Formats: sequence, structure tokens, C-alpha cells
Amino acid sequence: MSKSIQPGSLMKAEIDEQPAVFDRILSDGTPEVALVARRIAAASPRFVLMAARGTSDHAALYLKYLVEIVLGLPCGLASPSTVTAYGATPDLRDVLWVAASQSGGSPDLLESTRAAERAGALTLAVTNAPDSPLGQAAQLHLDIRAGAERAVAATKTYTATLLTLWLLVESWRGGDGGAGRQLPDLAQRVVDEPAVEEVADRFRFVDKVVVTGRGYAYPTAREAALKLMETSYLAAHAFSGADLLHGPLAMIDEDRPVVAVTPHGVAGTAMEPVLARLAERGADVTLVGDAAHGSAGIVVPVPRTAEELSPLLEIIPLQRLAHTMAVARHHDPDAPRGLAKVTRTL
Amino acid sequence: MSKSIQPGSLMKAEIDEQPAVFDRILSDGTPEVALVARRIAAASPRFVLMAARGTSDHAALYLKYLVEIVLGLPCGLASPSTVTAYGATPDLRDVLWVAASQSGGSPDLLESTRAAERAGALTLAVTNAPDSPLGQAAQLHLDIRAGAERAVAATKTYTATLLTLWLLVESWRGGDGGAGRQLPDLAQRVVDEPAVEEVADRFRFVDKVVVTGRGYAYPTAREAALKLMETSYLAAHAFSGADLLHGPLAMIDEDRPVVAVTPHGVAGTAMEPVLARLAERGADVTLVGDAAHGSAGIVVPVPRTAEELSPLLEIIPLQRLAHTMAVARHHDPDAPRGLAKVTRTL
Repeated sequence: MSKSIQPGSLMKAEIDEQPAVFDRILSDGTPEVALVARRIAAASPRFVLMAARGTSDHAALYLKYLVEIVLGLPCGLASPSTVTAYGATPDLRDVLWVAASQSGGSPDLLESTRAAERAGALTLAVTNAPDSPLGQAAQLHLDIRAGAERAVAATKTYTATLLTLWLLVESWRGGDGGAGRQLPDLAQRVVDEPAVEEVADRFRFVDKVVVTGRGYAYPTAREAALKLMETSYLAAHAFSGADLLHGPLAMIDEDRPVVAVTPHGVAGTAMEPVLARLAERGADVTLVGDAAHGSAGIVVPVPRTAEELSPLLEIIPLQRLAHTMAVARHHDPDAPRGLAKVTRTL
Repeated sequence: MSKSIQPGSLMKAEIDEQPAVFDRILSDGTPEVALVARRIAAASPRFVLMAARGTSDHAALYLKYLVEIVLGLPCGLASPSTVTAYGATPDLRDVLWVAASQSGGSPDLLESTRAAERAGALTLAVTNAPDSPLGQAAQLHLDIRAGAERAVAATKTYTATLLTLWLLVESWRGGDGGAGRQLPDLAQRVVDEPAVEEVADRFRFVDKVVVTGRGYAYPTAREAALKLMETSYLAAHAFSGADLLHGPLAMIDEDRPVVAVTPHGVAGTAMEPVLARLAERGADVTLVGDAAHGSAGIVVPVPRTAEELSPLLEIIPLQRLAHTMAVARHHDPDAPRGLAKVTRTL
């Protein structure tokens, strides 16, 4: 774990690097992705299971929406402990097993991926470390090409994983990747968007926050809440817009602002009734995405793109919010208390 | 929605009713469960998908562990919005689709269950309302026999769903249900356990709490956090013990106690390294379950049972904690602000 000279400078540099990482993946990663996609398509999997922890779990959740919506395959998030702790021996024939981990070093993912192959699955590792144990153990591997990540709070490895997974699904369905070409330019606009500073300023004394989104925007809500928890130690909760109305709505009050992620498209439209309920309750709402879906205190605009690519952009202002709030509170988001870069869970 | 005369009296009565509900399910529910289990076994599903929201989503998560560990079938939690909002048309042949909802009235579950049948799945509804639209729409139905639930915060319908799902899996694998027979007596002991009052007293001024568990105890952690959020408006976070070490550990400090659910068995043992990390960070830890797995400020003992049944008991003291804390704060847990008993999400 690196300790930066100026607190948060590593995290900031890695947030700012994301347009360049997108460019690198689009330029250099496409042939490898196409090869892996052909191998997967040839195996014709009927189910997809994903295994991941922390930030990578949110990337897996993004893949779940892509696989279900774009490919029409049922998809689940695996619970590695059922294999590693309980010794379950599932029947995984016709299953594609996707293990995502930036370090490729988590023992439970390694063990459950090996068990998945024995159980009949085709296994794919998605890592930022091709030579890692996980990268070596899986039958297929995709390198997310994010370059070394030095801040403990993952930023560029998250969006690099999303883009790699999107390219995989795009290639699997026979697309030409055209929708992705604008991403580096659009990401640069989000990196430069000034409204984030305004939100950070307004949230200076906040210690509880709810982040919400539906569909493709739900992984963004989850990842944003994790960033706020791990860098600013906020009590940040993420809920899908639908689940928010089943119970947690009760805890929304004047001390707890809401950040709603509202992409242009289906996910934004599906949030409109949720935003209406929040307005009835007098909630303080900040929108990230397309302002057309509701009125709010501050709107952080995110340029329009194909909805399935919107998660690659919408997380960036929320990473910047986590970074700015942490630095304002004299925390060091490059090295949050109690955390190591590689977490070893068994 | 009923408004009680004494705030929280409905929720308390329903918590206290759980031993009797267990008894009723074990006495009256078994033949129906056996019939449904035979239909499912005859269809030989290769994959299980579950759809649910809120408290029922935690019951679905319990079923996921059961199905993966006991039956060795891969299992996923469906995202209803992929069908209802995005119009996805998945291939669900060989899939068992389980929709859980106490009211059976949620439009998105109804629509996604109908879509699942069209996509080739065998569909099962698990509800407290056999005549509900969802109960009627699914090919198979299980009644959880909890009786009318009047408090908005679900308690007895949660454990009744767990027991019904356990009986289903037990019957599906050809077991005799013997491990369940003691449940009414064991549940009565938990309903009467005095240590809960001590924890409620100690948490009188807490406004942030983390609940954690692994394996079979993870759904309990999730459900406990939801109860604390919706009745006492606490910032209650739930994490699997493994995920807690990936980021959220940073936010554990002297103002945020931890409740760890540690059943006798694998899930408790798997929590030991997590409890050790929490101790290093000086966390204030309360244990619910088996005291053997770690030292803690207060231990709420829960009688030993087969580990796969422990979630039916361990949630009870946590329901009682949510109730007691809410009443002490002059909230009405029977009718939390902003919530209705039937949540209609599209």
C-alpha cells in the first residue's frame, strides 16, 4: 500500500486517468476480448454465474444486467462461501463462471473458480493482473489494462472492468463496438464537470446519505455508496429505487440527503415515481445523470450515451465526490483506515 | 394499514406469535409442501431464480444458500426490472422461478412471474395470500400460513417464509423434516431471552450500526438491518463478513457498534477471522448466536439447532431489538413514517 505525500493525490490521479484507460482498452483490448467472446459463444452457456467481492461485485452486478437484457440469459451472483466454507458441489454444466477481481489474489475466488471448473463450468477471470493466481487458474482470462492502481479505493479498475465486460458482451452478440468509441471524450467531460464541487460543498457536514438508482444505474448506486463509506466513512446506503420504497424510505429525513442516478433512458424513467415519493417526503435530492427525470437541488449532468454504457460515466462524478469530501474532512482516501489493497478472505 | 393503540403493540404481538406460526406450518403445511416438492423434483430444474423485494428478498437469499448447499443447484436473485422495465426475454427453460411476497400484490413480481412462465420456467409463488394475483398467476403456490400481518414491519411472515422454504427443500431432497420439529420450542426460548433488553438499553443513543454474518447468517444480517432502518430509522448497514473487509471496515469506529450473527457451525467459524479484525480495530461487538466464536460486549444466546435452521431463530432477537429501540425512541414500529403495507413498484 502506497502512502501518498498529499492525501488523496493517488486517488485523484487515478480518477483523472479514466479517459486514457478507456482509450487504451478500446485500442489494445479488443482482439483479446473478441477471442474470449468466440470461445464463450462456441460453448453456448445457458446460465452465467459471477463471483466477486467489494467494488468488483458491483462490476459483476453490471454484467448481470447486460447478460439478462442484451443476451437474454439468466444470471446470478455466486456466494463463494457455499463452496469454500460449506463444501457445496453444484452442477455447473452449461454455466459460464465469471470471477472478477482487480488483484486476482483473493483466496476464496481462486478456490471457488477452481471448484466451478471441476463442476463443469467454463471459467473466465477478469483481472488487472494476468499473472495472478486467479488469472492463471481460470480457463479464460481478460486483462482490464487499467495499469497499476495505487490508491486503496478502487476507481479506474472499476470502470476498466465495466468497459471490458461491455466489450465482451458486445462481441458475444456480434456488435461492432461502435457505441463505445465516444467514451474517452465523454469521460473527459465528466472528469471536468464543475457541479461536483458544488455538491461536495453542500454535503460538507453530511454523515448519512442514500444513493439510489434502478436497472443499469443500480450498480452505480452501490459502488458510489461503497466509495463514500470507505473514503469519507459516511453512513452511505444504496438501494434500488424499488427496494427503497420497501422499508428504507422510512429513514429518509432532513438529515439524510439522497443522490439519485438517473440515466437518459429506461433506468431514468423508472426512477420518476421514486423521485415523486421522495419529493412527497420532503427529501433533499441531488441528481446525477439526465435532469429531465425529476427536479432536484443540484443536478450533476452526465453526457448522454447508450444507456448500457451510462454506468461507465455516471460513477465518475461520484468517485470525485467521495474524494473531495474525504480530503475536505482531512481523511486520506488513498489509504483509508483499516484497509489493505488486497483483501484476503477465505 | 392498522394504527395500534399502543405504539408497537402489533409488531410485538406478531414477534411473539412466531413459535405458534412455526407449529401451525409444521402441522398443517407439510402435505401441500410435499406435493409442490414432487412437482418440482419431477421437472428436474437445473437453475433456480428468485424474485422478491424488501424482507422477502432476504427470505429469497436464504433459499439461495439452501439450494446451493443442500441441492447443489446454481441459484440467482432475479432483477425484475430487466423484464418489466427493459423488456428482456430470457431463455428460462430448466429454470425454477420462485417469487416470494407476503401480500402477493406487487405488480412487478406479478408481471415478471408471468414473463418467466412464457420464457419456459416452472413458476412457484410463496405468499401469505393464496388468493392474491401472484398466488393465482404462478403454476405452483405455497401458503406460508402466518395469518394476517398487521404491523407494517414484517416479522412473522419472514420466518414463516423461511420455514416454508426449508420444508420445501427438505421434502425435495427426500428428508423427513425431523430437524424442524423442535423449532416452536426453541423459538419460544428466543422470544423470552432477556439479553435483548440489555442490548437495546446499551444502544439507546446509537444512530449507526453494522450487522454482519456469513453463509446462512448473511440473510439474517440483511433482514436485521432492514428492521432497524424501517422501525428506528437507524443507519444500519449489513455486510457479509467477507465483504465487510473489502472497504466498509474503514467506517467502523467508536460511534458505530457491530452486531455479529454467529451460528453454531460453519457460518460462525467463518466469522472468527472477521471478529479478530474487528477486535484489532477496537470495534464494539455484540454477538447473536453461539458465544464460542468470539468475545464480545454482550452475547445474545440462541439455542443450537441444525445450522440451516439457525436463521429462523437468530432473526427473532434482532426483531425484538428493532421493536424495543423504536418504542424507546417514541417511534411507532407498527406504522413507520412513509411506508405502506403493500408496496407497489412497477
